Amino acid sequence: MTLQSPNVFADRLTEGVRRLGPLCVGVDPHPALIPELFGSPGPASALAWGKAVIDRCAGRVTVVKPQAALFERWGARGVLALEEVCAAAQAAGLIVILDAKRGDIGSTAEGYAEAYLGAGASCHADCLTVNPYMGLDTIEPFVAVAEARGRGVAVLVRTSNPGSADFQSLRVGDEPLYMKVARSLAPMTERLMGASGWSGLMMVAGATGPREAAEIRGVAGRALFLVPGYGAQGGGAEAALSGFAPGYGGREGGVVNASRSVSLPDAARGLSKAAEWDQIVEAAIESAQADLVRAAANGG
Amino acid sequence: MTLQSPNVFADRLTEGVRRLGPLCVGVDPHPALIPELFGSPGPASALAWGKAVIDRCAGRVTVVKPQAALFERWGARGVLALEEVCAAAQAAGLIVILDAKRGDIGSTAEGYAEAYLGAGASCHADCLTVNPYMGLDTIEPFVAVAEARGRGVAVLVRTSNPGSADFQSLRVGDEPLYMKVARSLAPMTERLMGASGWSGLMMVAGATGPREAAEIRGVAGRALFLVPGYGAQGGGAEAALSGFAPGYGGREGGVVNASRSVSLPDAARGLSKAAEWDQIVEAAIESAQADLVRAAANGG
Repeated sequence: MTLQSPNVFADRLTEGVRRLGPLCVGVDPHPALIPELFGSPGPASALAWGKAVIDRCAGRVTVVKPQAALFERWGARGVLALEEVCAAAQAAGLIVILDAKRGDIGSTAEGYAEAYLGAGASCHADCLTVNPYMGLDTIEPFVAVAEARGRGVAVLVRTSNPGSADFQSLRVGDEPLYMKVARSLAPMTERLMGASGWSGLMMVAGATGPREAAEIRGVAGRALFLVPGYGAQGGGAEAALSGFAPGYGGREGGVVNASRSVSLPDAARGLSKAAEWDQIVEAAIESAQADLVRAAANGG
Repeated sequence: MTLQSPNVFADRLTEGVRRLGPLCVGVDPHPALIPELFGSPGPASALAWGKAVIDRCAGRVTVVKPQAALFERWGARGVLALEEVCAAAQAAGLIVILDAKRGDIGSTAEGYAEAYLGAGASCHADCLTVNPYMGLDTIEPFVAVAEARGRGVAVLVRTSNPGSADFQSLRVGDEPLYMKVARSLAPMTERLMGASGWSGLMMVAGATGPREAAEIRGVAGRALFLVPGYGAQGGGAEAALSGFAPGYGGREGGVVNASRSVSLPDAARGLSKAAEWDQIVEAAIESAQADLVRAAANGG
């Protein structure tokens, strides 16, 4: 067995969050919500808007999370736009968590791992979201690439949508399914451990389930959390941080994603001037970041 | 409530299977396995090989199942190749089940549903595989589009990989999780019902778990099954059909997928002449189809 280096992804993320705060900005190009100043709905508009969001994020947040589905809806041209947005984010010094929620049997999962985390990837991401339903052998190829290349893997544990209760909350013995999933990830969490003491094996635990997130933290050890559902989906800062642990600056242990509320704010919908849009989006990002930093400092 | 037409996808599939047999051919462009006669590994070779497989399938099978991951590994150029393979399959009169295993929260799932099943889709598929872990509200957007446009949705219930036992088989009350998933799909199965009496709501139930597939059939009603794991993954014809029901020609109720064993057979690996490759792949397809038709006729 070779001695692995500490996980670079976990350490970069932790360092960045300590410096700027835990906000992650979702890059979700909903065609009906992108202002017309970026062009008529299509991959070109998604790209122009995505790059503008990246520019606003630079220096204000550490992590961005492009949503693959909303690029893929435009087919190959959309995937090309996604690749360019990821490249622009990395050029701006941002960490990219690609929200693609992949998962497939071993030989096929290797294809996905290669596509997004591999050395020859055309869409370079630092971390990829994956779905655990098919079992640990379908997560393994992602973890193997992440381990070798200092990347992250974010596993869906308890998601932020209302339907998350349908299967994730079913009781298996004396606890819900999501707790079984979280427990089973412990060996992978160890393998992706950084020098910071946090792991690049991330667990997705939604802000809409603060009690559940705290429960998951009880078995997640030093897995970083990726928390969706803050902002437009209704979760407040306090709820979003409930799976964090005592640490640097109050509480730490992950990132909290906001999408529409910061990158597609209502106030920026009808604007025709780029400078005005810039101002409103920058203010929305800074306000959300400050909200989360303040809540984290309160210590919970 | 508007009166829906019978589900066209379910009826076309059922008619085709009754005519030719239940074989579905997987189009999985594993770069290391595609013969050199199609070019060096890359999206162009995946496309050339994929189109050649489609040509061999025409008139011999009803359904093909391209594996999205193995095209996506080449980024936007791979997605373009996938779009062309899907278009070629439909031009050849084949039904396309796109194996992408998608799943996301509502507004994002709408993006995926639009991308693959919608009127303006760049990658036209007749049916898409989806992952249920996030809950029924994440499957709903796919079913809504399938209902409106006569398409199919194939939900992962019990997959064919060894790790399927990790979570799918956990006991929830008195039965495994996969049974809860199968039961919960009953209303969606009704909504996608065809005039044939079979539904375009498909359930994925692997050939490597024949007992489980039979158990799932007990609650699946008239859902068509998509059965992976026959052939290279080790399941025989008898095992692959264990979730089928008494019907036309013995047993019916779905399709059985074979990938490597028919579209990337060992005997065709080192070939340099296209005509020889054609013959070997045609023979492999015809042999697998005959194997399944024979087993189905035995009645189980």
